[in-house]
Amino acid sequence: MHEVNKDLQRERQNCTFDVEEMTVLYDGGKEKTAERRYRDNVMVSTKDYYSGVPEYYLGAKEKYEESIRKSVIIFGLVRKMQREGRTKITDIRHFLQCLLGSAPTYDGTSMALHYLMFVPAIVSQGTEEQQAHWLPRAWNGNFIGSFAQTELGHGTFIRGLETTATYDPDTQEFVLHSPTLTSHKWWAGGLGHTANYAIVVAQLYTKGQSHGVHAFIVPIRDEQTHQPLPGIRVGDVGGKLGLEAVNNGFLGFDHVRIPRNNMLMKHAQVLKDGTYVKTSDGKLIYATMLFMRVVIAYDMVNYLTKAVTIATRYSAVRRQTPVRKDGPELQILDYLTQQHKLLITIATAYCFKIISTIHWDTYDEINEQVANGKLDRLPELHALVCCLKAIVTSDTAQCIERCRLACGGYGYMLSSNLPALYGQVTAACIYEGDNTVLLLQTARFLLKTWQRLDSHTLPPTVAYLKTASSEGFLPKWENSAEGIIRGLQVVAMRKISACAAAIEKRVTSGVPLEQAWNLSSVQLVAAAETHGRVVLATYFYEGANKMIAGASASTGAVLRRLLELYLVYWALQSLVDLLKYTNISERGTEELQAWYEELLVILRPNAVGLVDAFDIRDKMLHSTLGSYDGRVYERLMGEAQKSPLNKEPDYSPFHKYLKPYMQGKL
Amino acid sequence: MHEVNKDLQRERQNCTFDVEEMTVLYDGGKEKTAERRYRDNVMVSTKDYYSGVPEYYLGAKEKYEESIRKSVIIFGLVRKMQREGRTKITDIRHFLQCLLGSAPTYDGTSMALHYLMFVPAIVSQGTEEQQAHWLPRAWNGNFIGSFAQTELGHGTFIRGLETTATYDPDTQEFVLHSPTLTSHKWWAGGLGHTANYAIVVAQLYTKGQSHGVHAFIVPIRDEQTHQPLPGIRVGDVGGKLGLEAVNNGFLGFDHVRIPRNNMLMKHAQVLKDGTYVKTSDGKLIYATMLFMRVVIAYDMVNYLTKAVTIATRYSAVRRQTPVRKDGPELQILDYLTQQHKLLITIATAYCFKIISTIHWDTYDEINEQVANGKLDRLPELHALVCCLKAIVTSDTAQCIERCRLACGGYGYMLSSNLPALYGQVTAACIYEGDNTVLLLQTARFLLKTWQRLDSHTLPPTVAYLKTASSEGFLPKWENSAEGIIRGLQVVAMRKISACAAAIEKRVTSGVPLEQAWNLSSVQLVAAAETHGRVVLATYFYEGANKMIAGASASTGAVLRRLLELYLVYWALQSLVDLLKYTNISERGTEELQAWYEELLVILRPNAVGLVDAFDIRDKMLHSTLGSYDGRVYERLMGEAQKSPLNKEPDYSPFHKYLKPYMQGKL
Repeated sequence: MHEVNKDLQRERQNCTFDVEEMTVLYDGGKEKTAERRYRDNVMVSTKDYYSGVPEYYLGAKEKYEESIRKSVIIFGLVRKMQREGRTKITDIRHFLQCLLGSAPTYDGTSMALHYLMFVPAIVSQGTEEQQAHWLPRAWNGNFIGSFAQTELGHGTFIRGLETTATYDPDTQEFVLHSPTLTSHKWWAGGLGHTANYAIVVAQLYTKGQSHGVHAFIVPIRDEQTHQPLPGIRVGDVGGKLGLEAVNNGFLGFDHVRIPRNNMLMKHAQVLKDGTYVKTSDGKLIYATMLFMRVVIAYDMVNYLTKAVTIATRYSAVRRQTPVRKDGPELQILDYLTQQHKLLITIATAYCFKIISTIHWDTYDEINEQVANGKLDRLPELHALVCCLKAIVTSDTAQCIERCRLACGGYGYMLSSNLPALYGQVTAACIYEGDNTVLLLQTARFLLKTWQRLDSHTLPPTVAYLKTASSEGFLPKWENSAEGIIRGLQVVAMRKISACAAAIEKRVTSGVPLEQAWNLSSVQLVAAAETHGRVVLATYFYEGANKMIAGASASTGAVLRRLLELYLVYWALQSLVDLLKYTNISERGTEELQAWYEELLVILRPNAVGLVDAFDIRDKMLHSTLGSYDGRVYERLMGEAQKSPLNKEPDYSPFHKYLKPYMQGKL
Repeated sequence: MHEVNKDLQRERQNCTFDVEEMTVLYDGGKEKTAERRYRDNVMVSTKDYYSGVPEYYLGAKEKYEESIRKSVIIFGLVRKMQREGRTKITDIRHFLQCLLGSAPTYDGTSMALHYLMFVPAIVSQGTEEQQAHWLPRAWNGNFIGSFAQTELGHGTFIRGLETTATYDPDTQEFVLHSPTLTSHKWWAGGLGHTANYAIVVAQLYTKGQSHGVHAFIVPIRDEQTHQPLPGIRVGDVGGKLGLEAVNNGFLGFDHVRIPRNNMLMKHAQVLKDGTYVKTSDGKLIYATMLFMRVVIAYDMVNYLTKAVTIATRYSAVRRQTPVRKDGPELQILDYLTQQHKLLITIATAYCFKIISTIHWDTYDEINEQVANGKLDRLPELHALVCCLKAIVTSDTAQCIERCRLACGGYGYMLSSNLPALYGQVTAACIYEGDNTVLLLQTARFLLKTWQRLDSHTLPPTVAYLKTASSEGFLPKWENSAEGIIRGLQVVAMRKISACAAAIEKRVTSGVPLEQAWNLSSVQLVAAAETHGRVVLATYFYEGANKMIAGASASTGAVLRRLLELYLVYWALQSLVDLLKYTNISERGTEELQAWYEELLVILRPNAVGLVDAFDIRDKMLHSTLGSYDGRVYERLMGEAQKSPLNKEPDYSPFHKYLKPYMQGKL
């Protein structure tokens, strides 16, 4: 092992809290830390992973083969640990954080969707018989499924899907068909060349009648030869900004027949004679559909902690420009502008870790109620899941990009891993619901809630709308964590109220409601976002204080500062609204700004300790800039040598093109 | 030719102004439009460009060969047009806009730096004899040069460079040497495997004395064999987020000898006996060094217009979600939230086109004064160039990313060309000076100016600081273009004043000046940015009004709206400061918001016309989403077919890895 960079050594000596204690708090207990470390070890210690040539130098076919080679190693290890009782593939939190999170695949895997969507869809939408038929082989990975809903011409608006599944009572089969170019399925992960099954969402027709979209299990490729089955047109959608190894596919059907039993029939059935029977509320499917958005929000912190670990360690190692002439060049982490970029990102990572766990638990709680037929919190859950998915993915993308830019030119190098992390996260701003669309859905719920303020008991996450609108709620602005949260509550409440008024004004003046809604939509998105900020602030406040209660004084103090930094930052970002809707004074805003800058200075000495506490192995970071020992320049030069352009110099482009050009022959 | 998408046809019919008139205004006159189109035609009509497989599917070596193949075609065509008198390679504006802009290279070219930096450096730093010796072959492309300044461990702080050039009077040679790993040159464009010469910036030592950094012409590779010359360690820096074809290189020297005459000696000489003679002010070099930052700011609009053309046309074609149940799905361009994303980007593109021309002319004017020994506007020029480079690159990157996200999932596909555009532009936020560092340099000038407010005549671009601080400058807030500009001037003035006060307060309390500066740097960056916003607003206001004066009423009206949209948008972005520093009322802020939304609705019908007026050929856009005929879905499916994964199905990854995994053998 090489010596650790001197500056990093000093950073670690000056850290004021116990890093191991923080890691354990972060993981949720010593046992969990030990379990996670065991799984991490298994995942990173397999030597077969590393082939010597970084994937990004490979051509499309080689890249695909390499990603499959690695994917089966990963999922093989998961299967092995499962047999040993060390994890369950059903524990999606492990799956994301430790298994995929520590995975050596540079840019995703085409097999994940099988476990994240294909299997859960059968669980939630299949009958007991269907589950008994499909799940054992599916869990065991004896085939790989994908989930195909979105079409080339149809995304958010699911009712507009064009793929048809027409029941033929003579053969007791469904006929799947793609009537147009725009009806081709597009995007389904793993569908390109990996999956041999897919759940396909299609418009059901039986007895000449349309019954809306339903889900069907469709074999895509021959299990022995992997050739596409007759009538199936399938392939990769082509190059993407990131997640290249996910092998997203397109899929078209030319009158493809599947047995009647391949329709997932838990909530609706087509009988042998073609009779359509609906047996349960569609809302039940709905709750399980929301699950992916909870998973996505939960997953973001895995990328964010990597990015900020990389940027913070690099900023401790990199030196640039002396402050005094002839003095030594400064660690760039000592520049306030750099602290401004990184510390809020560290605070955000701690926030997202805490809130996403609370969010997941809230989902579990409400989902259980729903499964038991108690549907009243479902609209609240929907609104919550939509806005948290939107804000968490969007903030994570911005934070990662800020980390990347904070590393200067080296953040532009693929070997830093920052471009790939951004590529993976920015995708999440779009998939499973475009963020703007999701915020508008939350806004719709908020406006409905606003109209029921006095007539209904409000569900927990929006109950503040009532209290914040009562007199004397915030008589005087207060620069404290609690004061800021109350201030944000007032802002959210007033913005929702303003939206309601704006729409009403337009409707009163004769504008149709739909148009009034559209004309107010910029404002609506902003209101929904502020509501989300209130939820994040509240969850973080509650979660952090719980952690602080169980922490030593020194560690608790640091957590408290992170919480404050996060809240002050968002108060400053909301200053226009605070000035408009609360009685914060000019003096108050100046104190907020001073508080923020003071927190940067206070937290600065712990920056490296705070990212060390994320406990991410070098083999999980995949970064020349972020490794624990800080040997940045050695690694950059070492990685450059791995480029095939450097390893196997080839003078043919010179002789074929450059030389004739230089000699004026071209 | 295929039929144009119906929605796009209707958009074009409903456009209220003459698109061709706008194009001519945008280009600066009919003759210029005709010349540009001639060059565009030459550049895009060469069939040899297109090989059938998009570059992003290739492995590193194939990608490099393909980029060189295309580069020599491009530069060959430029040489041809030059001979015909249709352009001059010295006309860098053509070079960027029409030649590289229309180039078929997907991601840059490794030969551009030769013309953009190597040749200009010889012009500005070489003696007349040196110019006579080197320039004819260089202009003619008989060799390809690079420019190597930045080192692995050294960027912004040029005095910290470690590469040495030690004069040996015995042989009358300089000995170039890289004493450490961190002294290796890094980033130089084209240096990897393309250039055979480089200008190398190194610490000059002669007669045992150091004389700071100077520039040397160094042969890197044998002109016949292209092998690296003895003592030279050279190669590609490795994979990057974008600009892959630029072939950025690293370079190390092991006591490499070059003739004395290879030092560029216009401003300082080393005589045969090793005597060092300085013959002119270093500031002269400095002015020419600023040129690249002007070029970069000018170049941004070429990327921005492409991105917004793509996103706007796509938003007219894409339909999603009916407003009324059972109604048709809406063009997404009809959603206010989409207009909010795109129209400000269109306005920004018009703004940047106009201001970057004014900026270039201002540079030319001051640079000529400097060349004639009149140095007094040099600090102003420096401050101006720094903040405009920072703001224009950063705004462009954000606008392009907004366009990309506004295209939903398809913006994530490489075939949209949006990821590559973002990759090219985000690089510009870092190279030739990190944006945060540049804004701090501007802040330094602004603070100096502030201290001289009463004692000196202020140079033009900061003269407003004096007028805006005089009483009665903005007695009452006014919601008009002029009012907004005056408001922004007040804000910039007050922020600079606040920075001066904050630093003074800290110094008075005993904090050393350098530390006080650092502790105020977040505030300083913000002040410099606001100053830049004032310059942008003023330039755009003046430039647009000049265009409007020469335009028809209908075209002028649209330009006026674009100007207003841009100003109102930035007023809204600056609302915290306007509330703090001007007497804008709550009512006034609400009117601003209403004005903004009204402008979106007014400009909406002209969105497609406004991007059509950029007159960018399909072969320059390289986008499945943005082509003139709007056949988005056909192109997406067509591009997917070009993936080698789809073209040549390969079942070996299945048989080697997937099948054994599915059978439980792995």
